[in-house]
Parts: sequence; structure tokens; C-alpha cells
Amino acid sequence: MLDGRINRVSNTLALRVQQRIDSKTKPLGALGRLESLAHQICMVQGRLNPELRNPTLLVCAGDHGIAAEGVSAYPAEVTHQMVLNYLAGGAAINVFARANGFALHIADAGVNHDFAGVQGLIPAKVRAGTRNFLREPAMTAAECTLALQNGALQVRHFHAGGSNIIAFGEMGIANTSSAAVLASLLRGLPLAQCVGRGTGLDDAGLARKQAVLARAVEHHGRIDNPLDVLRTFGGYEIAMIAGGIMEAAARRMLILIDGFIVTAALAAACALRPDVLPFCIFAHRSDENGHAALLASLEARPLLDLQLRLGEGTGAALAYPLVKAAVAFMNEMASFESAAVSNKE
Amino acid sequence: MLDGRINRVSNTLALRVQQRIDSKTKPLGALGRLESLAHQICMVQGRLNPELRNPTLLVCAGDHGIAAEGVSAYPAEVTHQMVLNYLAGGAAINVFARANGFALHIADAGVNHDFAGVQGLIPAKVRAGTRNFLREPAMTAAECTLALQNGALQVRHFHAGGSNIIAFGEMGIANTSSAAVLASLLRGLPLAQCVGRGTGLDDAGLARKQAVLARAVEHHGRIDNPLDVLRTFGGYEIAMIAGGIMEAAARRMLILIDGFIVTAALAAACALRPDVLPFCIFAHRSDENGHAALLASLEARPLLDLQLRLGEGTGAALAYPLVKAAVAFMNEMASFESAAVSNKE
Repeated sequence: MLDGRINRVSNTLALRVQQRIDSKTKPLGALGRLESLAHQICMVQGRLNPELRNPTLLVCAGDHGIAAEGVSAYPAEVTHQMVLNYLAGGAAINVFARANGFALHIADAGVNHDFAGVQGLIPAKVRAGTRNFLREPAMTAAECTLALQNGALQVRHFHAGGSNIIAFGEMGIANTSSAAVLASLLRGLPLAQCVGRGTGLDDAGLARKQAVLARAVEHHGRIDNPLDVLRTFGGYEIAMIAGGIMEAAARRMLILIDGFIVTAALAAACALRPDVLPFCIFAHRSDENGHAALLASLEARPLLDLQLRLGEGTGAALAYPLVKAAVAFMNEMASFESAAVSNKE
Repeated sequence: MLDGRINRVSNTLALRVQQRIDSKTKPLGALGRLESLAHQICMVQGRLNPELRNPTLLVCAGDHGIAAEGVSAYPAEVTHQMVLNYLAGGAAINVFARANGFALHIADAGVNHDFAGVQGLIPAKVRAGTRNFLREPAMTAAECTLALQNGALQVRHFHAGGSNIIAFGEMGIANTSSAAVLASLLRGLPLAQCVGRGTGLDDAGLARKQAVLARAVEHHGRIDNPLDVLRTFGGYEIAMIAGGIMEAAARRMLILIDGFIVTAALAAACALRPDVLPFCIFAHRSDENGHAALLASLEARPLLDLQLRLGEGTGAALAYPLVKAAVAFMNEMASFESAAVSNKE
């Protein structure tokens, strides 16, 4: 199900793309990061005149057993309350998705709430929240596989509907705890470097979170298989996003990577399929402690750095106009020749 | 003409704006820079529900006598060629203004070219290029005043047409030379820190530019009056932008500040009217050497850092979706109360 072809594209195309960028009426390299972004998009799409079709943003929500250990500043019921807020159109991601032209979809990947009768929610609930990974693995192997498959299934559906660019967002009280452990174990980063204040822990709360996560890692001992790392410490929404990322790469879609949680899901996807990275556009560096180190471990240079720490896919939605701008300059700017402008002396 | 009222707004409003931001369904401060941006916009507009009307981008073009000293990588005729490219719609700023909803206007502030018969260009030519400031002041006092007034006049016109947010762009071969000297003298920065490669000088070209500018500064000796600094080393497009900035602030418009040249024009505007700063939104940090130091001297934190070094207002146009997003979250996001979401424990 996750075995789409992830291809390399040719050096010839790379040269032709660069020549096209350099022919535009601007000093060489003067559009900076937009030039490397345009180059990446052309390579992913295998064409000199890239296009963005039906941008899609999938927010996956899930609850976390580890929340019982007091690792979040907000109560666990906020997960389902925010899902209802998304469906009502009142959250930040609704505003930014609307502003920047995304079709927004909300999936229940594993929220601890009965949404019976609620309209507009993608049903993908594996279980009503993960188990508390301080005591036992968050998911069974079968649950983890199901969450991965759920993500792939949704992406296949969006792709079939004509989308060629997808962003992921997430909601899940305590999911920075999951993401911190995943980042640490999957990328070989010190745990303390990956643990942050999440939605706003104070110093005492942060110390408690660090102690809880260190105990959890010690409890489970060494785990070599990335799928086992994911099922032991992950969340259903994180696994669903990881599955979605792998499927999107297999279908050669552009993947806009949001903040700390989505990047942790990417780390899982990368561990399972390293070839996903060339398809990823890193939207922003979040203010959550750990994101900078996680991005650096992936050699990722994000587009924005706005001290955001909200998740939901907000950073991805906010970065999208830059992606559109990169595509627009490739397609719409005149060349020195066509505009009769003198080139460098 | 430039003496509009620049008012301070109340502490009461500042508190109410912050309360409104903090009531939104997100952790406190989680929208980072967008929150301070939304706060600034509310304060400039004196309201809790800000709005952006008729965003306008004015590109001012002018030629520079100092270009004769070989301080640019491109020949001087590129200034008028690029003006024609703007009018034909083929430059980067055309693409980005279109993409992000700006009405784009191009003004001839002082280009060394006869545009007779050319449609769509705002005629504001003070002279066919400045004088070579290695030998004599770039402008007379009367010319400098006229350029300032031309900028104010255009902004009054845009404001009367309903615009409440304006960005400026510029085109002028060799204008990083002007801007470097202005930045150095107006902000007390070492000249060497302000001189960069512009459109792409090599090491030898950069050394030559530094030597030429150091000689020019020495030639004119100490100048205390900022208006005299502007007329001695500035450009017609830079003075026009400075006049536009002062007028926009006087009319309480939001001013989106682009890269190195526009920030140098702002430095001149600030020296003449320090109260312009609260109206300025700093769009980006450009890759041109000197911009970072110039921004720091103004205590400015730009929104984007994309290694752009093109000018034309491109950074301002690219940052505008973030400004729209800041306004949109203030107006459209639900509150904890309205969405029935539990607040922090």
C-alpha cells in the first residue's frame, strides 16, 4: 500500500531548470530562497513550467495516554473541543487555510471522544487515544499500521481528486511529548534538546515533562526498528501523517511540512522511506524547543521563522504564498531576451 | 505639505487589543510574530477589527550619476529598460504584486531616458539622473524637495482613492551606492558595513565601490543636516520614497518597508520625522550587505529572511500575505468562550 515509486529525476532537467531561472530579468540568484524552491518544485514535477493544483491541508487529531502524566498546560478535552472548533471554522488553521486557498480536511485519527452525528469529520479513529507510554507502548503494531494506512488512504483520495500539493496539520493535547521522544530516538538527538514547553508549560511543568519522558524512554529500553519506535511513543495522528507523507512522496506530490509534530512524523516517514525528503518543502521553524535541532538533523532550511508554536498546519498554510510566488516567477517573469534588458556587463 | 499629524494612540486601546489577541483559541502567544504584527496594525488603525484596503505598491525609478564610476555590475541603461519591463508586466514585482493583490504603480522619479509616448508611467522626473556625487552633490536642495513632494503627492492620491496600506519599491542602477552612504551617515554605521555587492559585483568590483564611496564621503566632508545628506548622496527615487513614507505616516497608513534601498529612504524619512516608525512593517531582511545593520539600527525585526536582493518592492509584496493573515486572525478566529474550548489549566 505504501510502495509507490519514488524516482530520481535527471541532471539534464536540473540544468535546464537552472538556465530558465537564470534567464529571468533579475540579477543572478537575486530571488534567493525562492530560486532554490522553484528549482525543487520543477524537479519534483519533472517540468520547466510547474503548477500547483488543489492545495490540500489535512489536520489529523488524536489523544495521548501520556497526557495523564500532566505533561501539557491544557486539559485533554481540548483535543476534541478544537476538532469541533475546526469543523465550525473558528480556529487559526481555518482562517489561514481560507486566506491562502487550501481545501481543509479534518480527520479523527484517534480522539478520545464520540463524534457520532458530527458532520464533516473524516472518520479514521484507530482507538480513543493512545495508551500511556510511560507504562506500555502507545499503540499495538496493528494499530500503528492502520494509522499509517489511514493517512495513505486519504492522500490517495486527494491525489485522485487532482491535488499535487499537500500540507499536514495536527491537534492532540500532549503530542509534543510524543514528538520529542520520536525526534530524539529517530534522529539521534539528546532528549533534553527535544523537549519544550508545548502549549505553554512553566519551568516546573517543563522539568516534570522532561523527567516523565526520560523515564518512559528508559522503561522501554533500546528499540532499533523505527516502526517500533513509532508505535511505542507515537500518536495516531502522528502515524497517520507519516503514512500520508510516504504516500504523497510515492505519488510525487509536493509536501509542505509544518512545525515540530509534523516534522517528527516526517522523521518517522524518513526512517521508513528515506526518499521522501526531496518532496518536502519546510514551511517554518517553530518556537517549540527541539524543532530547530530536528530540522538541522534533516538538513532542512525552512521558509519562515515567525516564532509560531501553534501547530494545526498553521505554519504550512502561512508559507504557501511563497510557494505560489516561486511557481509564479518561473511561469510569468520575462527573460532578458524577451524584455530586451541588457545583461551583466 | 509633509506636515500631517502623526499621533500617538492610547494605552487603553493597547490593552484591549492584547486582550482580544489573548482570547483567541490558541495558546498565549502561539502566533508569535503575527500577534505583534496584529497588535501594531490595530494601534495604527485605532481599532480592534483592523482592515486592509486597496494595497498599493509604488515603484520609483531613478538614475544615478555615480554609476559612471563603475560601481554596479549592470549598465545604467538597465534602469529604463526595467521600467519598460514593469510597464509590460514581465518583472518579478509584476508577478508578486499580481499574486498578492497589490495595485502596482511605476513612477519615473528621475530616469535618464525620454519616455515620451509611453503609457502608464507616473511622470515625476526631477532630472534625467542625479549628478555624480564623487564630484558634486547628487541634487540641488530644490530638486531634493521636489522629489520629496512628488512622493507625498502620489501617496495623497492613493490615500484619497481609499488605500490604507502602501509599499514602496525602487529601480536605479547604482542605487545601492547611494543607499550605503545614506545608511552610514544617517544611522552612524561604518561605511564598510553598509557597502555590498548590489546586483552582483565580484570582489574587485566591491573593493572599487568601497573606495569610490569612501572618497565621496571624504570629498563632501561633514554634513549635519539630514536633508543635506539626502540631497548630496541620495537619488531621486530614494527621496521620492522618503517623501511618500512621511506622507503615508501622516495619513496613518501602514507602510510596508522593502529592502536595503527603501530602508535607506526610511532612514532619511526618520531623520526628518522620527514619528514615522510606528507605521512601518518591515517586510524582509535582504541579502545585501548593510541591510541587517541598517535594520538593527532601527530596531526593526523583519518578517521574512529569504536571501532576496532584488529590490523593486519584491520583499514587501512577498510579505503581504503575512500582514493579511495577521488581520484575518484578529477578525475571524473564535474566542475560547465562543468556541467552548477549555482554557489553560
